[in-house]
Amino acid sequence: MSKENELVARIARALPSRVGGPPGACLLLGVGDDAAVVASGRGSNCVLTCDAFLEGVHFLADVHPPDSVGYKSLVRATSDIAAMGAAARLFLLTLALPAYRTGAWLDQFLRGMNRAARSMGLRLAGGDTTKHPTVAIGITVLGELGRQRAVTRSGARVGDLIYVSGRLGRADLGLALLRRRLGRAIWTRPLVRQHLYPIARLELGTWLARHRIPSAMMDLSDGLSTDLARLCAASKVGAVLWRDRIPGPVVPDRLVPRLDRLRLSLPRLALHGGDDYELLFTVPVARAKALARAPGFRNLAAIGTITRGRDILLMDSAGRTTKLEPLGWDPFRPK
Amino acid sequence: MSKENELVARIARALPSRVGGPPGACLLLGVGDDAAVVASGRGSNCVLTCDAFLEGVHFLADVHPPDSVGYKSLVRATSDIAAMGAAARLFLLTLALPAYRTGAWLDQFLRGMNRAARSMGLRLAGGDTTKHPTVAIGITVLGELGRQRAVTRSGARVGDLIYVSGRLGRADLGLALLRRRLGRAIWTRPLVRQHLYPIARLELGTWLARHRIPSAMMDLSDGLSTDLARLCAASKVGAVLWRDRIPGPVVPDRLVPRLDRLRLSLPRLALHGGDDYELLFTVPVARAKALARAPGFRNLAAIGTITRGRDILLMDSAGRTTKLEPLGWDPFRPK
Repeated sequence: MSKENELVARIARALPSRVGGPPGACLLLGVGDDAAVVASGRGSNCVLTCDAFLEGVHFLADVHPPDSVGYKSLVRATSDIAAMGAAARLFLLTLALPAYRTGAWLDQFLRGMNRAARSMGLRLAGGDTTKHPTVAIGITVLGELGRQRAVTRSGARVGDLIYVSGRLGRADLGLALLRRRLGRAIWTRPLVRQHLYPIARLELGTWLARHRIPSAMMDLSDGLSTDLARLCAASKVGAVLWRDRIPGPVVPDRLVPRLDRLRLSLPRLALHGGDDYELLFTVPVARAKALARAPGFRNLAAIGTITRGRDILLMDSAGRTTKLEPLGWDPFRPK
Repeated sequence: MSKENELVARIARALPSRVGGPPGACLLLGVGDDAAVVASGRGSNCVLTCDAFLEGVHFLADVHPPDSVGYKSLVRATSDIAAMGAAARLFLLTLALPAYRTGAWLDQFLRGMNRAARSMGLRLAGGDTTKHPTVAIGITVLGELGRQRAVTRSGARVGDLIYVSGRLGRADLGLALLRRRLGRAIWTRPLVRQHLYPIARLELGTWLARHRIPSAMMDLSDGLSTDLARLCAASKVGAVLWRDRIPGPVVPDRLVPRLDRLRLSLPRLALHGGDDYELLFTVPVARAKALARAPGFRNLAAIGTITRGRDILLMDSAGRTTKLEPLGWDPFRPK
């Protein structure tokens, strides 16, 4: 188990966290999924999630423009709503920042956040502001399920196909280029944009849930290897991934010869790179045909299958398998 | 207007924050009150609030024991639910902390938070954990109103009486004693306890709302002078406070002669001291009699009246008035 997963399990054991409660605010699904599911009376369900976005951890003040910080912090939290199959409705913003960031920096931050809120149909419902030596952002998002059931991480069954919704590793590649000061060239901009201004797959998520196609779903925030391990653990299954079916970043020709020198491997980025906010979901084989009408169907890729064992295996084109370790983002992993 | 209020107004202008939305998650009351009110379908309403609790801002690692940090961070956020007249149901915990705090410190933190959660009837619904050089806590609380209306800050009318639910300034006095290393004496402990382990007035808040007694209500987190100014601004009214009716801290005899040397003034603490989490509410004169059945009625004090002007005035026993400036906690006020 990753260090972060262990910590979450410890917190859930130490605090009252069982599902249940009075009918007006009954917890249907608690700690351990992308978002909590709350029944708010008479079959109307909502989902609730929160996310921290901290200077020095999730963004760097000298690398990330303020409008990206505002934009991405909101998209990142809302991606968890998409992963449950819910529609994004309201958000709360906790904003702690130094006094010298309350001028132009804050204006640009709010401009980026406004753009993200409008594109995702979110309204600000409230929040908290305070002073702090570094910028610390907390976002809570409320999503609406209505009478629909949430898609959880725990429903994957042996034999289900594993899908992802886009090309993986692009955001991490964009970050690598930004950090090496290669982010301003025209030919690197699309990759950098994926890192600075990601897209939450809300339309796809709600469509999939409405058509009851996925057996399990989550968003890819920490990298395929880490997140698939979480989905499999929640579903008590294993997986085989087909190495050559995993869609990695498409890079401009002139970047290809430089990758080695930059110590970047596209297959590794696709397996372990975080921050993509694509959807990872499993589909019973009999339901796979129905996917053809999904929004953005052409960007969907079947990358493997759910197995009985508990390991996550990577299979090459010759059928040889190796164990895939969860090497995505884990803030508490010793370096 | 305080610096913090200005900042909140700027954020609300820059982001989509109008009330409204689809029936399943319709924003009835947004930015500017203690919590947001959301209609979750068929007359069932909930309230939603979030609060940051940051090392170096809201607590000091060498002054505040970890179980107090866990306890107080949850009480503080939940006090906003009490202030709306709602029942506390679920919370989300965002916890950012350094690796060296994930051992005994975290255990004690969780023990304190568990105690607060159980005493207030709260369940953990989810959260987010990450690493950070200092401890940064974000709490989101969901409260249930059912079909009842929330009590807002904006309903105070000219002539209404102003009430508070307990003795004010005790928490700030407790902090002052702690910081001067006087917190461990038996005779200072009750004051220090009020600072470390405050109580959210949930029972009183829900009782008041159910009996439709207050015209306006909020919790006292930043000090009477600052919070009453917020309530009056939201209600577009002014107030006169009766100086000798404001219940200040009761202190042990042996502390009285030391107060001057410690540069502590009990009346000033009662007017401007933060962190009490008592309720501040206004009541039409005709409804005041009904208060006699309120839980903890003996601790309620009528301290003034709502006026037509926009000033907050302080009246002494001879009837002389002076203007009361909001000198409570404002993180952005220049020192």
